[in-house]
Amino acid sequence: MPVILPWPEMEKCLKEVDLIEIMKNAFVAYSSGQSIIPPVGELNFTNPPGDVHIKYGYLRDGSQYVVKIASGFYNNPALGLASSQGLMLLFSKKTGCLDAILLDDGRLTDARTGAAGAMSVFYLAKPDISQILIIGAGTQAREQAKALLQATSCRDLIIWARDRNKANQMITDAQKMGYRASFVADCKTAVGTADIIITTTPTTQYLIHDDWVKPGTFIVAVGSDTAEKQEVDSAVLGRADRVIADSLSQAKNRGEIYRAFTSGHLEFSKVDELGQCLENIDAYRQQENEIYVVDLTGVAVQDLAIATAIFTMDR
Amino acid sequence: MPVILPWPEMEKCLKEVDLIEIMKNAFVAYSSGQSIIPPVGELNFTNPPGDVHIKYGYLRDGSQYVVKIASGFYNNPALGLASSQGLMLLFSKKTGCLDAILLDDGRLTDARTGAAGAMSVFYLAKPDISQILIIGAGTQAREQAKALLQATSCRDLIIWARDRNKANQMITDAQKMGYRASFVADCKTAVGTADIIITTTPTTQYLIHDDWVKPGTFIVAVGSDTAEKQEVDSAVLGRADRVIADSLSQAKNRGEIYRAFTSGHLEFSKVDELGQCLENIDAYRQQENEIYVVDLTGVAVQDLAIATAIFTMDR
Repeated sequence: MPVILPWPEMEKCLKEVDLIEIMKNAFVAYSSGQSIIPPVGELNFTNPPGDVHIKYGYLRDGSQYVVKIASGFYNNPALGLASSQGLMLLFSKKTGCLDAILLDDGRLTDARTGAAGAMSVFYLAKPDISQILIIGAGTQAREQAKALLQATSCRDLIIWARDRNKANQMITDAQKMGYRASFVADCKTAVGTADIIITTTPTTQYLIHDDWVKPGTFIVAVGSDTAEKQEVDSAVLGRADRVIADSLSQAKNRGEIYRAFTSGHLEFSKVDELGQCLENIDAYRQQENEIYVVDLTGVAVQDLAIATAIFTMDR
Repeated sequence: MPVILPWPEMEKCLKEVDLIEIMKNAFVAYSSGQSIIPPVGELNFTNPPGDVHIKYGYLRDGSQYVVKIASGFYNNPALGLASSQGLMLLFSKKTGCLDAILLDDGRLTDARTGAAGAMSVFYLAKPDISQILIIGAGTQAREQAKALLQATSCRDLIIWARDRNKANQMITDAQKMGYRASFVADCKTAVGTADIIITTTPTTQYLIHDDWVKPGTFIVAVGSDTAEKQEVDSAVLGRADRVIADSLSQAKNRGEIYRAFTSGHLEFSKVDELGQCLENIDAYRQQENEIYVVDLTGVAVQDLAIATAIFTMDR
């Protein structure tokens, strides 16, 4: 029988691991060719709308392979359910035997995505951060805020979200985390004042307009992980000083970079891969007036890293 | 919490369902466009050798989607483990919530694959069957023999396998099922006498030579489910009266049909899809001297069908 891990047990484990370092190492392994990560599997649903991503792979010198199923059903909150659902599975690379079922209902994906955003800020954003903007007020907005506590000492957080009520709840939650958090009604104003912008929505009509983005802005685009979703005007990627993909191969068919490429704003040759940047942080660290866009579509190596970190912990 | 079904419980359920009908209906639904089945996900391992297939999808009018992970690690028997490993997962199509974990260790895949072979024989082979040849002596050889009990009254079974000891164990098992089973040392002789040939090995060097195959032979090729595996000389597919794929789209990159296509022996236009044949059995039933090759690479709709049949049973 495989080990079956319920969420409360994993949540306890998560408090004892350094997710930012785990994510850094995962991306470095990925970009240096130490992992086998096939293309993402995808299922789409229309009624109600939802999408499922199946991510899987292994490290060449690892002992397990991971399969992660994560879905977003965006009408779920109206039913009292989280949008994110899913689980992770760990199998032996030697026999195929199922070692562990991680019943996370998508929460490990939420956590590793949050950690990847914060890790990008920690290693690649310019160190002086006076204000953070999070766009969106759902689960991932909270995950990003939570993970950023480890990545920066900045506690000035502004929120923009379409739904004012949800934004208010998000602000309350962020205040509990220790932020001075407030709502900014005008997205343009919010974008124009923040140093760090984290986008966390599933929109297909971009929210961040090119002429709103000032020099020195560091954007982490988290929400777009399909060919259709887009949160940032492609012109921003076109003029950014650096555009960084968590996965160059995934960026060819999903996310902000894919959108900017298909609209003719961006050449792929301009895009760097996150793990490569992390191996040479001095060369890739954002300078004072540079605009950075880090596009996170989510890579199976993150799932493998968080799942094995939990599985191998002394529980 | 999802329902977690261990194998003994599912094994009991399986005895109460008509898998041949379930497979027939699944293939008809698939070929008539009632299902969404994306391309198969695949992971390959070299040390030890193994392959993992991830199959997933849903019926348009169904209430769940399935994800099935099934692996073959062919050195497992030396460790006292089955080659096949894996599990199936059922999720709500409305919310993405995990409904059930079917801990089958690959056995539902074994069973549905066996049933698909027998179903093909039942509906499409000429009714007079005097002898069955099964090539291979592993798990799937037994599954095919077991399922064929429901598909034909023929009990004359011959076995060919490279490993004589494994063949002997297979013969003992087949005799317990009610077959008059015997070993044939020469594969050519075995192929030349059987009406029905079921191939169940993971070989990449074909075993069935073209000039061994006599008119009136009905071949079900079960073993090849990757781009590399091949059990049947492609020339057989070239001259066969009918070549039937369980999935036309999968046949374009895996299985016997893929091999015959890449070697120039076969045009895709000659290939029929199983579900279409099953909708018009009179037109597609094998005639006395016709050679048929049914190529089963395994389709997620079969996994969906067997998993939902078990999940919805009154347990």
